[in-house]
Amino acid sequence: MPLVIVGSMAFDTIETPFAKRERVIGGACVYASLAASNFDTAHIVGVVGDDFTQEHMNILEERKIDTSGVKKSPGKSFFWAGKYNQDMKTRETITTELNVFEKFEPELPEKYRDIPFLFLANIDPKLQMKVLNSMRRLKFTVCDTMDLWINIKKQELTEVFKRVDCVVLNDEEIRLFTGKDNVMHGAAEIQKLGPKYVIIKKGEHGSCLSGQGIYFSLPSYPVDNVVDPTGAGDSFAGAFTGYLAKTGKTDAATLKRAIAYGNTVASFTVEDFSIDGLLKIRTKDIENRMNEIKKMVNF
Amino acid sequence: MPLVIVGSMAFDTIETPFAKRERVIGGACVYASLAASNFDTAHIVGVVGDDFTQEHMNILEERKIDTSGVKKSPGKSFFWAGKYNQDMKTRETITTELNVFEKFEPELPEKYRDIPFLFLANIDPKLQMKVLNSMRRLKFTVCDTMDLWINIKKQELTEVFKRVDCVVLNDEEIRLFTGKDNVMHGAAEIQKLGPKYVIIKKGEHGSCLSGQGIYFSLPSYPVDNVVDPTGAGDSFAGAFTGYLAKTGKTDAATLKRAIAYGNTVASFTVEDFSIDGLLKIRTKDIENRMNEIKKMVNF
Repeated sequence: MPLVIVGSMAFDTIETPFAKRERVIGGACVYASLAASNFDTAHIVGVVGDDFTQEHMNILEERKIDTSGVKKSPGKSFFWAGKYNQDMKTRETITTELNVFEKFEPELPEKYRDIPFLFLANIDPKLQMKVLNSMRRLKFTVCDTMDLWINIKKQELTEVFKRVDCVVLNDEEIRLFTGKDNVMHGAAEIQKLGPKYVIIKKGEHGSCLSGQGIYFSLPSYPVDNVVDPTGAGDSFAGAFTGYLAKTGKTDAATLKRAIAYGNTVASFTVEDFSIDGLLKIRTKDIENRMNEIKKMVNF
Repeated sequence: MPLVIVGSMAFDTIETPFAKRERVIGGACVYASLAASNFDTAHIVGVVGDDFTQEHMNILEERKIDTSGVKKSPGKSFFWAGKYNQDMKTRETITTELNVFEKFEPELPEKYRDIPFLFLANIDPKLQMKVLNSMRRLKFTVCDTMDLWINIKKQELTEVFKRVDCVVLNDEEIRLFTGKDNVMHGAAEIQKLGPKYVIIKKGEHGSCLSGQGIYFSLPSYPVDNVVDPTGAGDSFAGAFTGYLAKTGKTDAATLKRAIAYGNTVASFTVEDFSIDGLLKIRTKDIENRMNEIKKMVNF
């Protein structure tokens, strides 16, 4: 089954202690849709400026991503510049230019509205709600967010959480949202609002899925050389939702495999700058690494 | 097969944001031997003061721990006081009184010297080397340490590492010892010194074993309520070495199961203050939680 992905499409300038890349393609929607494209057809919704050329769009379209929900507005695309610290985990934002993203109002093509799977990447919860209200036959919705929205739009975000099946957050976001130091207690509190599942993203430590009597935890694949962590979380969520969409199922076994696919695809993302790691992989690479992960935790 | 454990025996005053316990029993050797006692007979080496009464010793002896290598010296036992922060992970040391531990010289009873399994808990590497030199038929040695020895006795510690089969360290200790930001690269560097395996302890994120073509990674059990994290690492290493000793084997499958037993037993330790969590468990509890962990990572 197909899926819809809504989120930012951007250019990023990324600096690590080892290298720097200027104005490379990025944004949650871009990472997530490329990750999902390994599993099923991603129909994306976003906004880009004049600087996002047909050549850029072709990268997505070559992966059968439906870009008919992407609006082109006069001006520049969303731009983010960040610098990773020596640990390659923490980072500082150097610049954020919203540009055309500032007035982004997601408009879903009619054909998107009956699609059953949806990934709401990190955008203003008001816009996430607008998308939810446009969808008619949702079977499973996954929702991401960020500290900014928890801080300034908690009520709107809570309303979104009430409407989705699965929330994807990191430890800090769970603590910030719930005020609970114990992340598992925090996850349980979020589930009380409505989402059946909470996925806890732990970066290099992997991820957990909790809910409906399932507790599943998977370490991350030990990437030999982390080149650029940008987009790892979005790739994870894109692959996770993409795999669910592909199978059309959301039972425990499928959710667990979806987490493993999320971990797998994200591990390729961080092996290169921007989307380069994602563009390189083929089904066989994903299946091989899935088997390695399976072996890695088997006892 | 039996095992030898060498390390500190102490009293701890532990404060968390939720409670405080004064002068409770602690020390790496105590935690590790109680953990190991679930699997095989632990023969321990340590030093205690007059305040460590027969009643205290009985706690160990009731678990069939051989305390004939424990020296009783005039004076007070090693004492540590610490305070955990709100996150229940980081902590500050309030007091460290070495007391009788300051002049500790491990002396192994003759009957210990042909025992094949050894866990060298965190003590001065000079003493760890003395123990290694006393043992005649070692099959597998596991070695722990701490930042202090890496900082002030790196050469002596390196000599110890060259003689052991498995080193147990946390991320920060690996970085400190090797200067490598990437922990896996650091682990590989330590293996070049001699140890076949490096275990990376990651606290709430579980643990990894790397070496001899094996990479095994296991998340920690999601403890509902962490009461006191003291001794988790020692319990892990004690159970790990204890399980190897019990089976008498060190093949890949056994090492992986030993890691899982280490994680399991450590999860009970943190559920109560001091050794109380360890004292409560029975074989059935351990097996049940092992099965839960197995299920938790199975996909």
